[in-house]
Amino acid sequence: MNLKNIIKVLGYILMIESALLSPSLIIGLVTQEGDALAFGCTIILTLVIGFILSRIKSNKTISIKDGLAITSLSWIFMSLFGAIPLYLTKSTPTYVNAVFEIVSGFTTTGASVISNVEALSHGILFWRSFTHWIGGMGILVFSLAILPALGVGGFQLYKAESPGPIIGKIVPRLKDTAKGLYGIYVGITILNVFFLKIGGMSWFDSFVYTFGTVGTGGFSTKNISVAAYPSSYIHIVLSVFMTLSAINFSNYYLLLKGKVKEFFMDSEFKLYISVLFIGVALIALDLLSTSYKSIGLAFRDSFFQASSIMTTTGYSTVNFDLWSPFSKMILVALMFIGGSAGSTAGGFKVIRLLILFKMIKREVLKTFHPRAVIPIKVGGKVVPEDTISSIFSYTAIYIIIVIFSFIIISLEGVDFESIISSVMATFNNVGPGLGVVGPLRNFGTYSQWSIGYFTFLMLLGRLEIYTMLTLLSPRIWNNKV
Amino acid sequence: MNLKNIIKVLGYILMIESALLSPSLIIGLVTQEGDALAFGCTIILTLVIGFILSRIKSNKTISIKDGLAITSLSWIFMSLFGAIPLYLTKSTPTYVNAVFEIVSGFTTTGASVISNVEALSHGILFWRSFTHWIGGMGILVFSLAILPALGVGGFQLYKAESPGPIIGKIVPRLKDTAKGLYGIYVGITILNVFFLKIGGMSWFDSFVYTFGTVGTGGFSTKNISVAAYPSSYIHIVLSVFMTLSAINFSNYYLLLKGKVKEFFMDSEFKLYISVLFIGVALIALDLLSTSYKSIGLAFRDSFFQASSIMTTTGYSTVNFDLWSPFSKMILVALMFIGGSAGSTAGGFKVIRLLILFKMIKREVLKTFHPRAVIPIKVGGKVVPEDTISSIFSYTAIYIIIVIFSFIIISLEGVDFESIISSVMATFNNVGPGLGVVGPLRNFGTYSQWSIGYFTFLMLLGRLEIYTMLTLLSPRIWNNKV
Repeated sequence: MNLKNIIKVLGYILMIESALLSPSLIIGLVTQEGDALAFGCTIILTLVIGFILSRIKSNKTISIKDGLAITSLSWIFMSLFGAIPLYLTKSTPTYVNAVFEIVSGFTTTGASVISNVEALSHGILFWRSFTHWIGGMGILVFSLAILPALGVGGFQLYKAESPGPIIGKIVPRLKDTAKGLYGIYVGITILNVFFLKIGGMSWFDSFVYTFGTVGTGGFSTKNISVAAYPSSYIHIVLSVFMTLSAINFSNYYLLLKGKVKEFFMDSEFKLYISVLFIGVALIALDLLSTSYKSIGLAFRDSFFQASSIMTTTGYSTVNFDLWSPFSKMILVALMFIGGSAGSTAGGFKVIRLLILFKMIKREVLKTFHPRAVIPIKVGGKVVPEDTISSIFSYTAIYIIIVIFSFIIISLEGVDFESIISSVMATFNNVGPGLGVVGPLRNFGTYSQWSIGYFTFLMLLGRLEIYTMLTLLSPRIWNNKV
Repeated sequence: MNLKNIIKVLGYILMIESALLSPSLIIGLVTQEGDALAFGCTIILTLVIGFILSRIKSNKTISIKDGLAITSLSWIFMSLFGAIPLYLTKSTPTYVNAVFEIVSGFTTTGASVISNVEALSHGILFWRSFTHWIGGMGILVFSLAILPALGVGGFQLYKAESPGPIIGKIVPRLKDTAKGLYGIYVGITILNVFFLKIGGMSWFDSFVYTFGTVGTGGFSTKNISVAAYPSSYIHIVLSVFMTLSAINFSNYYLLLKGKVKEFFMDSEFKLYISVLFIGVALIALDLLSTSYKSIGLAFRDSFFQASSIMTTTGYSTVNFDLWSPFSKMILVALMFIGGSAGSTAGGFKVIRLLILFKMIKREVLKTFHPRAVIPIKVGGKVVPEDTISSIFSYTAIYIIIVIFSFIIISLEGVDFESIISSVMATFNNVGPGLGVVGPLRNFGTYSQWSIGYFTFLMLLGRLEIYTMLTLLSPRIWNNKV
């Protein structure tokens, strides 16, 4: 590992962060709610440290090890610095809580430790939600798009940060890819703001809810989340945009090139939409059989909640913690699956589920024909056995971390529903869960130890485990390339 | 598939079952508790139908498809006929419940729908527990040992029925293997009866508890399970024998050949013992920090409960449903892992966990060296990629079935703890769970639909999914070989 390389890039990243903090400073200066000083200090601190680090001389190219370390450390550093304004403005009682909140922002989780978000200043509310937007597409992809210095070895960074396995969809020229992806992202963002604004939201709320939606994050400006807006129009706009934001962004390339049929025939897209709509239908039926009278309302609420949970956004329009065990179990299952690879969504990812299904089919065939060699195909292309093998080990470590986390969090003495949904909601970057972390409650009741552990889980989930875990391996810290 | 082959073998299996029912008839005749007629009728019915089926002429060899169908159908037929005495004696209110109870017996689950087992006749109690002993080592392995007619194509049967993947430990000559395994099984059984008898148990209870222990089943003669025997000696004897019964039986071959070092150095054995003892230690510490005063008692109870759950036996000496969420979560984790392959225990199996760990280690190495080819080794031997691939798809389908079952059972409207532990306890052939299926409660409160579903889950778990699932595939029912 080349430490100079890493420090230099971290310097650039911090300078970018200081720029990203400036809209909040402007909001602070305009609204005069007392947070401008906190943002001003953080911006100067981040800029100065970033500038000093970026001055380090390094001519070596970025190796795989460097790329892994840069990715993990960028996320950690941006969170540690990004949490400062929350702590300085006393928005959170401790710095640990502030880091939780900002990691929850960058990882697009949307879990909160703040019980009364309506008491927060506009600058803080904006910053919290803006981190969703930044983290959604990835900090490094963003840097790739604007920093030519990172071009070398950049694919390693892209791969380490991108959600889900990459299965031959991406344009080979990386910088163009990054620009293209951000172009699509900005386009969807503008559309979303527009539709919210004409629905009667203020400009401020339109932006905040758009960041939470297209970043599949879930932070809002109200204690009762989207339920504060009773308009069906707003609910449906958000449901549709959440659903759109969890589709693989490379698919939108196909749309832009006029390949409409290819867009709809993509196997990951088909499985994603099928699972989502089965979930919506089952929950709607369950709601109708229990408390709901209107079919329209049942579908509106089940579509909103199922898409919010499956895309790992975490907005709520109703207190789904009061739904039946059946509907809640479906939500937990959707939480586990998550969105598509290459989108802003978290979770296990639909493409992995697709390959699991194909593996099972192959195994059944092999029971009859033990010697047959049957390749796994996705979209007509053979998936290399190496990719399958890494999906397997991802699944393995995913399950082991989930079970280990259940045991760790059970030390808090809360019920199984709370334990399971807290772990799934943070590890899969969803946000709210059930029980003590239900939609109208928050993570603030957990001990500082657990809040720290959940912070780690959110980063682990967002960077898809291995990138973070390599940081813990002694192998990365020696000087061999 | 050759239907004649299958019918013929099923005929033999039913004749064997009628013989296995006779000890209960004798007990019924001696105790005069009114169950002798039920056993007599069942024996005659089973014998006559078995004899007729076995008369079918078939000269073809048993193909892979035949083997799979024979395995699944044998277990189903033996359960359907074995349930008749329970229904005739009105030990269960419905035939569905009777089938659940006997499937729970054969699959060595030990889950019950009978709330007052102390009201059952001795013949029924014996039969219920004897099915554990029969199912523990496998019905077909037993048949292989005594029926030369099954020798051809028998490896397919053995593989389909044997718990866990087979990784080059088994003696190639199958009939000898079957005899060897049964020899060890009978040896352990005799030792267990002996140790219980000198601890003061009646002969009847010594046998019943031995069947439940070495078969890792868990049926007992008392409503409060082993808690009815307050003696620490009995608790420790059972804990030790449960632990011994979940070790791969091929390992005992090594012991018999004097290879003591190889026995203790076996990687599956080492992981099994480590996981078990970490579980025991954590639970004991938790018990000491909450309600227990004595270190000895804490370790006695945690050893008993952890080994009972991990070996998927399901006996209890205390009401562990009242333990802290932490201890309960550890029990659920042990439930998930289960015992060793090639033992009488159920669950995911330690060997699969071992290979998952090795896969994860390989993936971390591959993050640094993407082009390296790193084989997975167990006990110094390279595990073929094909075996790894089938462990992967097993893991995949295992998770999908677990999540699907959570959703199905959530329709019962019970809490998450009950849902999760009911599914894990039946699918992994453990027995009791938590909440509504806690150690002092039973599955009788579930609807008939759910009882039927749990029955299916127990068979699915015992035959390791694929064997049962192939029966649902149209491919098995056509005439191509």
